[in-house]
Amino acid sequence: MIKIAILGMGVVGGGVADVIMKNKAALAAAAHDDIEIKYILDLRDFPGHPLADRVTHNFDDILNDPSVSIVVETMGGSHPAYEYSIASLRAGKHVVTSNKEVVANYGDEFLHEAEAHGVHYLFEASVGGGIPLIRPLTTSLSTENISSIDGIVNGTTNYILTKMAEGGGSFDEALAEAKRLGYAEANPSADIDAVDAQRKICILTALITGRLLPTSAITTQSIRSITSADIAAAAKLGGTIKLIAHTDTKNGTINVFAAPCFVPYSSPLAHIKDVYNGILVSASVSGDLMFYGQGAGRYPTAGSIVADIAAIIRGTQNRIKPFEKASASEVLDPNLAVFQHFVTAPQSVAESVRDAFGTPIAETETDGVSAFIFPAMPHGEAIKAASALIEKEAPISICRII
Amino acid sequence: MIKIAILGMGVVGGGVADVIMKNKAALAAAAHDDIEIKYILDLRDFPGHPLADRVTHNFDDILNDPSVSIVVETMGGSHPAYEYSIASLRAGKHVVTSNKEVVANYGDEFLHEAEAHGVHYLFEASVGGGIPLIRPLTTSLSTENISSIDGIVNGTTNYILTKMAEGGGSFDEALAEAKRLGYAEANPSADIDAVDAQRKICILTALITGRLLPTSAITTQSIRSITSADIAAAAKLGGTIKLIAHTDTKNGTINVFAAPCFVPYSSPLAHIKDVYNGILVSASVSGDLMFYGQGAGRYPTAGSIVADIAAIIRGTQNRIKPFEKASASEVLDPNLAVFQHFVTAPQSVAESVRDAFGTPIAETETDGVSAFIFPAMPHGEAIKAASALIEKEAPISICRII
Repeated sequence: MIKIAILGMGVVGGGVADVIMKNKAALAAAAHDDIEIKYILDLRDFPGHPLADRVTHNFDDILNDPSVSIVVETMGGSHPAYEYSIASLRAGKHVVTSNKEVVANYGDEFLHEAEAHGVHYLFEASVGGGIPLIRPLTTSLSTENISSIDGIVNGTTNYILTKMAEGGGSFDEALAEAKRLGYAEANPSADIDAVDAQRKICILTALITGRLLPTSAITTQSIRSITSADIAAAAKLGGTIKLIAHTDTKNGTINVFAAPCFVPYSSPLAHIKDVYNGILVSASVSGDLMFYGQGAGRYPTAGSIVADIAAIIRGTQNRIKPFEKASASEVLDPNLAVFQHFVTAPQSVAESVRDAFGTPIAETETDGVSAFIFPAMPHGEAIKAASALIEKEAPISICRII
Repeated sequence: MIKIAILGMGVVGGGVADVIMKNKAALAAAAHDDIEIKYILDLRDFPGHPLADRVTHNFDDILNDPSVSIVVETMGGSHPAYEYSIASLRAGKHVVTSNKEVVANYGDEFLHEAEAHGVHYLFEASVGGGIPLIRPLTTSLSTENISSIDGIVNGTTNYILTKMAEGGGSFDEALAEAKRLGYAEANPSADIDAVDAQRKICILTALITGRLLPTSAITTQSIRSITSADIAAAAKLGGTIKLIAHTDTKNGTINVFAAPCFVPYSSPLAHIKDVYNGILVSASVSGDLMFYGQGAGRYPTAGSIVADIAAIIRGTQNRIKPFEKASASEVLDPNLAVFQHFVTAPQSVAESVRDAFGTPIAETETDGVSAFIFPAMPHGEAIKAASALIEKEAPISICRII
């Protein structure tokens, strides 16, 4: 009998409790042992809940109970998730989490502590929700070099961009609809402004390079400025706009960002719709792979946590190589990264755009908006060209093309 | 030092040898041990090859050498792959294969022998080439119920159907192009007539149900009769035609087939192009997941084999639950399986089609071809309706809609 504790009985923690209670037999068969939820740490009580008698308000009850071998951290936020996770690992307890913020900020410390104490720190649920992604990266692909990852890792923004592409109105209208459906929070900034995607690509970068960057070193760009006209113009040029979390190590430095990008229809990422996530991985031997599924939600996220728990219990979890803390200087200056660019501008300034960017590879116009695809140039030069035009004439928007 | 033998130095076996030689350091780090290719079994010699001195023509050299702990079977075909695999397992050697034919025919015996002798029989490379699929199914998803799988598991046919959809001509023209590019064999029947997909869905069915069916119990339908006009008409109705390998257990029996199907654009499978594969898995907790990548080819397939080898060596491979041999009677009569249907017919008989199938959900016409989507009905009834029309009037074609 394996005894676990759940820290935080919110959406995800509650989902983990549900899945463990409802799938006892299947879980025991897969994990080769029974699982008991011995403690639930929460500020609240849960009168009437079948696990009401497991609730504690004191983390020390869990820390000091040697019968608890696995701690599930679903509190979110950095503190006290950090303190409780470190304490659990030092007490020889495995820790499983869905908390991308704490993994992005302290994953290096956790993995080193886990190694030192012969336990696991696992976080499949922190990126891609229910999608098996981190386990394939650290098992099936462990012998390969991963040269790049391009991911749609935020369901809220993908829902908004999908609605805008399908005629669902402006950014504000699509955001309002996302809020109504529960896909966006009252304060949607972490999603919309790519902070969530920044944390996730920070974790994925660490998994493929071993280097855990400060999240602040990862450039972000909000999707707020994307208009329906931009997306309609992109469609006419054979693509769409998606919030892409990108990382690659092709030039010996880490080129990493989270920003709206033009994605050509030839990429499978262009067809990831609604709240789904898709993570495209370039592997040295196996080639291009994509992992697709629900990137958030109570049950998908709980499913990934339970998979981590089962792997620990049956003893088949391989050790995730500890990340090393990296400095912002390891990141390629985003101005120097070279991309093709997708540019939109009012038709009235089309000529000035051509003067500033050069001869386009393709161009179109629709509803008074001119759109262009320009040949590869350093991103900083594209921004400079755009800024000069914005100062002088009219709002223009530019996106990297992946 | 782990010593392995490769049986069959063809495209895949040679790829495995290359990958092991070229990635020695990464492989040793991932597997936590060095790997040496001690034997290569082949009918040929390989003068000048760096491993020429490892070639043997006698399987007994490998079987009787206790230092060989892993046998890589990349011979293809059922015999002598079956005999060599069984003998290796009985001698306490792990076996790793890419050979879908032998897994589909004898996987139950191999897994039982492996269990009896405390070794592994692994076959990640047998379905989906380089795509991590079987490991996620048997690890990350091991605690979940998988209710259905829909896969594009044959790259050759997907290339042909993609070319036809993109204006690349008739079936015969697209097949000729596939042959020219090396995507189709001189005798393409195993791919075109869905025998390859049949074997793969047989293996996937066993993984999610534990039941290894005789492959002959799995209905197949060739893509030979699909025309460019059918695909153009499908596009007008919001989808495309793909060779789909399907399995589900929703009604307590196994509903399994490999046949060309109408796939709506809302499905991520509709956007899998060229030789890529995509496998859509419905999991009870994690929801819909898709695994995408190169389903064939020297290096992707070798990558999956090497991943299996690494998992064995580092001791983190969990046991794949042995399949049990199943009888054809466990399969749902394909005539009773209920689907919506996509039907095309010469425009001149459109009225007769409506009379036979009922009121369509949608219809269109293009270049003298009428196309319809009809409400759900047993597949046998749809075939009967079509057959009566074919006898009386004109060629019509029907596809299940997934």
